Amino acid sequence: MKYVDLNCDLGESFGAYTLGMDQAVIPHISSANVACGFHASDPLVMSKTVAMAREYGVAVGAHPGYPDLVGFGRRNLNVTPSEVQAMVQYQIGALQAFCTANGVRMQHVKPHGAMYNMAAKDRRLAEAICQGICEVDPELILLGLSGSCLLEAGREAGLRCASEVFADRAYEDDGSLTPRGQKGAVITDEEEAIARVLQMVLQGTVQSRGGSTISIQADSVCLHGDGEKAVEFARKIRKALSANDVKVICLTEMLAV
Amino acid sequence: MKYVDLNCDLGESFGAYTLGMDQAVIPHISSANVACGFHASDPLVMSKTVAMAREYGVAVGAHPGYPDLVGFGRRNLNVTPSEVQAMVQYQIGALQAFCTANGVRMQHVKPHGAMYNMAAKDRRLAEAICQGICEVDPELILLGLSGSCLLEAGREAGLRCASEVFADRAYEDDGSLTPRGQKGAVITDEEEAIARVLQMVLQGTVQSRGGSTISIQADSVCLHGDGEKAVEFARKIRKALSANDVKVICLTEMLAV
Amino acid sequence: MKYVDLNCDLGESFGAYTLGMDQAVIPHISSANVACGFHASDPLVMSKTVAMAREYGVAVGAHPGYPDLVGFGRRNLNVTPSEVQAMVQYQIGALQAFCTANGVRMQHVKPHGAMYNMAAKDRRLAEAICQGICEVDPELILLGLSGSCLLEAGREAGLRCASEVFADRAYEDDGSLTPRGQKGAVITDEEEAIARVLQMVLQGTVQSRGGSTISIQADSVCLHGDGEKAVEFARKIRKALSANDVKVICLTEMLAV
Amino acid sequence: MKYVDLNCDLGESFGAYTLGMDQAVIPHISSANVACGFHASDPLVMSKTVAMAREYGVAVGAHPGYPDLVGFGRRNLNVTPSEVQAMVQYQIGALQAFCTANGVRMQHVKPHGAMYNMAAKDRRLAEAICQGICEVDPELILLGLSGSCLLEAGREAGLRCASEVFADRAYEDDGSLTPRGQKGAVITDEEEAIARVLQMVLQGTVQSRGGSTISIQADSVCLHGDGEKAVEFARKIRKALSANDVKVICLTEMLAV
Repeated sequence: MKYVDLNCDLGESFGAYTLGMDQAVIPHISSANVACGFHASDPLVMSKTVAMAREYGVAVGAHPGYPDLVGFGRRNLNVTPSEVQAMVQYQIGALQAFCTANGVRMQHVKPHGAMYNMAAKDRRLAEAICQGICEVDPELILLGLSGSCLLEAGREAGLRCASEVFADRAYEDDGSLTPRGQKGAVITDEEEAIARVLQMVLQGTVQSRGGSTISIQADSVCLHGDGEKAVEFARKIRKALSANDVKVICLTEMLAV
Repeated sequence: MKYVDLNCDLGESFGAYTLGMDQAVIPHISSANVACGFHASDPLVMSKTVAMAREYGVAVGAHPGYPDLVGFGRRNLNVTPSEVQAMVQYQIGALQAFCTANGVRMQHVKPHGAMYNMAAKDRRLAEAICQGICEVDPELILLGLSGSCLLEAGREAGLRCASEVFADRAYEDDGSLTPRGQKGAVITDEEEAIARVLQMVLQGTVQSRGGSTISIQADSVCLHGDGEKAVEFARKIRKALSANDVKVICLTEMLAV
Repeated sequence: MKYVDLNCDLGESFGAYTLGMDQAVIPHISSANVACGFHASDPLVMSKTVAMAREYGVAVGAHPGYPDLVGFGRRNLNVTPSEVQAMVQYQIGALQAFCTANGVRMQHVKPHGAMYNMAAKDRRLAEAICQGICEVDPELILLGLSGSCLLEAGREAGLRCASEVFADRAYEDDGSLTPRGQKGAVITDEEEAIARVLQMVLQGTVQSRGGSTISIQADSVCLHGDGEKAVEFARKIRKALSANDVKVICLTEMLAV
Repeated sequence: MKYVDLNCDLGESFGAYTLGMDQAVIPHISSANVACGFHASDPLVMSKTVAMAREYGVAVGAHPGYPDLVGFGRRNLNVTPSEVQAMVQYQIGALQAFCTANGVRMQHVKPHGAMYNMAAKDRRLAEAICQGICEVDPELILLGLSGSCLLEAGREAGLRCASEVFADRAYEDDGSLTPRGQKGAVITDEEEAIARVLQMVLQGTVQSRGGSTISIQADSVCLHGDGEKAVEFARKIRKALSANDVKVICLTEMLAV
């Protein structure tokens, strides 16, 4: 039997601002990346999000980002390794408090947005993030882009690592994501997206944008909860996985298989 | 033999802004209240402050404040109990990460500024803070104003509590602090301040502003590190305590006596 | 013929967060209170909001608030008069830049949330706000709660003042708003709300919660744009006003009548 | 007779945090770049700084930066042209309010830190900044790195432009600043720095790091106010300029010569 984790960014609301359909998407996922107050969220939202994850039996991970609320953590910021290490530790710790308060064990860490993208390619940032995680809790699983520099750094640091793939993104021949600006970077056809996920999970391969069949490790698929359509897609992919005997389990179970 | 803890707010610098003479005052204290990024500090400052506390063998406590950096957490903010509970948990957790990374066990929690003052009188806020602490780590010691509503709530919540007194502040007949605006609220004479501390620690009493001798519990004396004069006063009070056979120990040891 | 201004808070979105149905409500109003980045909004949102107001011929006002994004400026904050004066000036200036860039003349200033409520009762805050406005542009109209301390201070400072009333709020015998916590504070019946607005505008009176008929000055009615129902109510009230020969005009025109 | 402007970043304090020796350096300069609350400063600090500049007869300019208080606006941030345009307009407007309140005419705009450096090389950012300035007040003088892309964009946009040089920085053969990381990037010898400034102002040339004599436009010299030594240097350079018959005048006067 095959297994895969389905992860989604949750708890991105802030104060009077609501973002994402957390309640609607959470039944379909196995792991939640919970924003930690830097690029999104606030203490009350974090508290409620962890409580909701516990209620649904969904594993909780920290989703640390850059301190750029107005940019939602999506803008590259030229931080030093020391800065990124400290901000990752701060955010993991903050979320940890709500996990403890809710009797939940934190499962993983997935950097958010620009931090995720920069750490996928910048080895020094990647190492700083991994060191930050190791010092706070070496049992945490690092969730990062499949084939990325971040996961390499994580493995060398001795962290358990999980490889994330995207249903709606094209890949280059070297396994990297096709940059968003380029033609064909985003897969808009739902059926095609589902077929790609099945191939990645069942066969460990994907068609690159150039047409080659390349290897890809697919421990976890990133889903979205930012609209009716995204939630509907989550439901469909879950159904398709089930129809193909792929069991959805959280990262902790995945890595124990 | 008598014992007392000397505490000081540390780690209040922020980014390019330096505040406080942490390096100069830390040799004189036994417990450090470390700012957690809401009213002051940032992740890098927190990391360095906890490392410094460990180096000097000074116990570390969380110093959570209101999210009011420009007002330094000193302005009353009309938060709900749920909000204050979540913001206290968030900040304890954030500091906890740096304690873990430095191999330090967090000792206590002392609310900062307006949160400290409001919780000294508002029972609902006080209870929310205590519940927040209990849920994250019931072993943490609550450090609050001697005789305050906050400590009452802490005791009822089952927290170990430590009573803080001020060397440079006048007390009313009911044991409350004379509000800063009023005449005589601040003791400016150093010798008088030292004599008052000795009386509080050795005899458990203090002269109220009205002239009465009132009872006061003095587990910890609040010192300052915000200038040459403050640091010099810390040195003097330490010397005076020693000359009177009062041993300076951290809160954990105090409560174990 | 009778006249009234209809105002609504616009431009409260922030970064990736959308709040309010600005596009839907703007056709129904004559004056827009534009958030200035402290309690809500960001520079890009402000730029777009002013451009939209110009497009619809809606007058633009500054809506300065406390620097409390997570609390949406709704939590009382114990600021000094100097602080509130400076923060009001800062926010007026910031919005002024976008008015100038769009060739729009700023019409008014309406303090937001907790600042509005506190200034309605605290004379020193009210005076500081008015002084702040006068120093930046004495031609700006001050929009405040009908019968409030803020408007008194505004008149004494020589500002043109406009009195705001609420369709969905109960009034006490002294003309103050019934606090939200109390029974009957909010009028939920739409027909009743419309009838009350008509009475306030046409007769200058309203039924207090205690049943008395009290005088009230109604230059401008506060509408909301935070949901389908609010927008629908805006449409209905506009229609009812028209049916009763009340013309909706902006504050500048109101005060020139 | 020769002329030059001496500019310095002022008003970088924030809340309880003091930064810079504004009072000590202001007698030595002719133009002040006033922080606008994004990378440093707050409304009260801005108000006081503009009042101080007026008192000393020093011209006031806006010093807009990235919204990165903890990084002091020194970290590159991947903003879009629309974002930078709006944030520049917002900050100019905010400072404009304090200028108006103090009866001061704003003289210039000098982007701060990472925004300054990025706009020196990125034409699209530079154009967005210039458009932002033009829309708010086309009479404002743009102060930027001598020979930079920012000044090119400013001239094409029809702005009056002033070229800034640095006393303590090395230049490459192409007139760009030697990056800080490189050997010899910073001139630490005070006499050498003064000699370089005199050569730049009197002869319009400077020795590049490679040893060539290159042309450089020196309308304004950037001074610092962040320490005793910096203030002392400001005094010395002013004296040296005077001894060489160079008159220190503000940018408005410079461009009118």
